[in-house]
Amino acid sequence: MSVTSALCFEASGVAAGIRYSKKDVALVRSTVPAVGGAMFSRNKVQAACLQVNRANLAAADPQAVVINSGVANSATGATGYANAVATAAHTASLLGVEPEQVLVLSTGVIGVQLPMERLLPGVESAVSALAADGGRDAAQAIMTTDTRAKETAVAGDGFTVGGMAKGSGMIHPDLATMLAVLTTDYPLDHDEPIAFLRPAVDATFNAISVDGDCSTNDLVLLLANGASGIERTPATDTAFAAALRVACEDLSRQIVADGEGVTVLAEIQVDGAVDAAQAKAIARRIATSPLVKTALFGHDANWGRVLMAAGSAPYNGGYADIDADRTTLRYNDVVVLDRGTPTGVEPDVSGPSCAIALELGLGDGSASYLTSDLSLDYVRINGDYRS
Amino acid sequence: MSVTSALCFEASGVAAGIRYSKKDVALVRSTVPAVGGAMFSRNKVQAACLQVNRANLAAADPQAVVINSGVANSATGATGYANAVATAAHTASLLGVEPEQVLVLSTGVIGVQLPMERLLPGVESAVSALAADGGRDAAQAIMTTDTRAKETAVAGDGFTVGGMAKGSGMIHPDLATMLAVLTTDYPLDHDEPIAFLRPAVDATFNAISVDGDCSTNDLVLLLANGASGIERTPATDTAFAAALRVACEDLSRQIVADGEGVTVLAEIQVDGAVDAAQAKAIARRIATSPLVKTALFGHDANWGRVLMAAGSAPYNGGYADIDADRTTLRYNDVVVLDRGTPTGVEPDVSGPSCAIALELGLGDGSASYLTSDLSLDYVRINGDYRS
Repeated sequence: MSVTSALCFEASGVAAGIRYSKKDVALVRSTVPAVGGAMFSRNKVQAACLQVNRANLAAADPQAVVINSGVANSATGATGYANAVATAAHTASLLGVEPEQVLVLSTGVIGVQLPMERLLPGVESAVSALAADGGRDAAQAIMTTDTRAKETAVAGDGFTVGGMAKGSGMIHPDLATMLAVLTTDYPLDHDEPIAFLRPAVDATFNAISVDGDCSTNDLVLLLANGASGIERTPATDTAFAAALRVACEDLSRQIVADGEGVTVLAEIQVDGAVDAAQAKAIARRIATSPLVKTALFGHDANWGRVLMAAGSAPYNGGYADIDADRTTLRYNDVVVLDRGTPTGVEPDVSGPSCAIALELGLGDGSASYLTSDLSLDYVRINGDYRS
Repeated sequence: MSVTSALCFEASGVAAGIRYSKKDVALVRSTVPAVGGAMFSRNKVQAACLQVNRANLAAADPQAVVINSGVANSATGATGYANAVATAAHTASLLGVEPEQVLVLSTGVIGVQLPMERLLPGVESAVSALAADGGRDAAQAIMTTDTRAKETAVAGDGFTVGGMAKGSGMIHPDLATMLAVLTTDYPLDHDEPIAFLRPAVDATFNAISVDGDCSTNDLVLLLANGASGIERTPATDTAFAAALRVACEDLSRQIVADGEGVTVLAEIQVDGAVDAAQAKAIARRIATSPLVKTALFGHDANWGRVLMAAGSAPYNGGYADIDADRTTLRYNDVVVLDRGTPTGVEPDVSGPSCAIALELGLGDGSASYLTSDLSLDYVRINGDYRS
């Protein structure tokens, strides 16, 4: 049930002293040749490691990924880029692979240089510690304000998908302060990982939000080494795609559930929008509204705030279409607004999860979103601590 | 120093029992014929009163505005619309003007019907209480979670601009849970108020943010009755436009300073963007980022979060342009990032206000934004109370 659940993957997590005394350097590698693909944060400010990873993925098939927490190595100029390259090169020399076969991920504070005098010895320890049962250590080493390690494994018929992720703040579509490493022993060709990854990520990691912020460091990586030896058919491809999506879904739910200060999870479902793009714009706007999220925190079915947010969803330079008189709104299946008329019924939102469903009556567009409340602890965590 | 500072305006504020025991019905009227114009919230969900006001402004020159707090009369269907029309008609009959000459504003909880059995007697009390010194009462009656009444007056050479506003939550460009009534004795023609209002509002009310939320009820109204008798020239028009902008600036600053839970004000200045529209997109994104705002609350110059936000500013379906290597960032005039390289200098952000300036080095686009921190009290106010 970890990033090493698939055959021929090893991992480790060690404390290099970058971030207090916790584990802060993780390593994942395939013991046999692998292929890989990644989806990157769309933030225009890209951490040095992301720039290095783009170049490395273009140059060679990846076989390992080294990850540090504590320092994001973002907005660090030429020194930061050189440090990311040096980290990959040092790891590669210890593993006996080419420098371009090692990917580098960093998460933590932006604008601070990596302490190379601690990171490089940490990499050496991580290489020494590599083990088939090292997935939990690796998942712990990538945590920042996460309170729980996030791991998954999905067993297919003759193959396995494993994975780990970190989340917590800056969680938002197009990848936030979120890192996810997925591994599989399913056989893929050189250019196939991204083709399988994209639809799985769009439906999962790209449909969650904790605070609407989008980090400079995020990446979802898939490494595939074919070690299962399974014979590929269209049916096994379909089964692999499904398993990958389940693994992404599992990790993305763990991320939201462990979002900074989260006490309530909410599923936002929008149906009947003009089209799917408008539905997603509206669902996203509701999922990121501070007033909606504070009401969730207060267990207050203050549905007017949902309507307010739905009516101001940025779309194409204006707002997405909504006609209040045709709109029906449900909280936990209880209708609070029936085609524009309030029903006066008070739904029960006392639980730790809440389903908010909006039917717009305008077309066939649907979208869903997983979000969380905005709590006092979210403010405490982000106001008190340079995370 | 109020909405009645200009000649021939009267106002009142009374307690009608709509919202606890505080004043909750305000009335402002010109004692002589006036002209008026308004800018409306762009939210696709428009409160009933806004729909009525559009119709009334198209049909007649306004002479009075009646405002209730406690209930927003938004998402209230046909009954809500009828109640807004009835409120205008009742006020008009008491004032001896046409129903279309009365505008109606509501602010408060969405999805609840106006208690007409209390509102209409309240209107009668408000009409009886009208007085040239009733501006303060009116400003108090429109408060919801505001902690202070917001009033202004700007004396020109031979004319005056007065005003009042409410703010607090859902404060965001394109008008939020914000109401502002501006009055002047400067002489304007029937169709001129909106022409003067638009540039003043764009530079002030439309460049502030408390929580990024945008309400269904917002409106900025200008009533002009010409009672000053001043002879208009191009020079007096320029002076009037300047005075109107100062009044809007004053009220908008009061709104942000009294935003829900606000403890820190921040001026966001973006220069060197590709163009002004991209500069505004970037400034807005920084001003609304929960991570930037919680760092302000914590008096933490965590400037990486500013860069993160700047790099993910929605623009034209993608993100606005920024090149981290050309970006310089200052906190209170201290350079923390110099064309992509961190300086390591720690600025002092211990005070109640903070100036954040980003120079992108890409073009001539500039924009500024006034925002606030995201505090524990913001969450308390919006989590604990159905406002």
